[in-house]
Amino acid sequence: MHRSRLSTFLIDTPAAEAARSAAFWSAALGVPASPVPDEPQFTSLPGVHPDLVFAVQGVDDAPRYHVDIETDDHNAETARLVALGAVEINRWLDCHTLRVPGGQLVCVIPVHSDPEVFDRLAHTWP
Amino acid sequence: MHRSRLSTFLIDTPAAEAARSAAFWSAALGVPASPVPDEPQFTSLPGVHPDLVFAVQGVDDAPRYHVDIETDDHNAETARLVALGAVEINRWLDCHTLRVPGGQLVCVIPVHSDPEVFDRLAHTWP
Repeated sequence: MHRSRLSTFLIDTPAAEAARSAAFWSAALGVPASPVPDEPQFTSLPGVHPDLVFAVQGVDDAPRYHVDIETDDHNAETARLVALGAVEINRWLDCHTLRVPGGQLVCVIPVHSDPEVFDRLAHTWP
Repeated sequence: MHRSRLSTFLIDTPAAEAARSAAFWSAALGVPASPVPDEPQFTSLPGVHPDLVFAVQGVDDAPRYHVDIETDDHNAETARLVALGAVEINRWLDCHTLRVPGGQLVCVIPVHSDPEVFDRLAHTWP
């Protein structure tokens, strides 16, 4: 058995535009724009929605959004989503990037929420 | 004064793939896939997250995600976001499509949540 939940909403923005993007979303949604220690590509937007992480990520790619699914077993969760039709297109450490049916991107990542939030909201899979 | 909040997460999928996309997300997140009466392009995914609408939308375009900001004054909210750097690229009835700084799409739409949810979570703008 393992658990997972949709945890994170990423606003992927070309790196040169990331600061402007973060300033926009902060003002648009009425939340702070908070740098993430040791992860300079991320700017967190705390308070957009309870129990869901929102952040701008500077990327070397076209603008897009993507979502993360956090899990206590990244290999099992990736295998579960692949069995549902997703295709793994990249892996970096314990983070798996999948293209899901329909064509969008989803990343499977280790749990990064507070344990209380994960325990309360994650689904358990057989 | 008017109010707004980020209310909706749309999984935009080429129409021919939309049924497969909805089936994937339903199984992946452990929620039902519910057709939306009178709006056949939408399949709702109720229960992904409290107070946030998740849905697959069949589109005549490339796969992507987008978000909606719901508001009690769509013209005032659009003007506020344009003043923050967004550009209005389309309008259909009371729905405004904006390209925001960084390049992603956001739609401004009239309130569609329960009034209690909107009252509890919307920001008030001067």
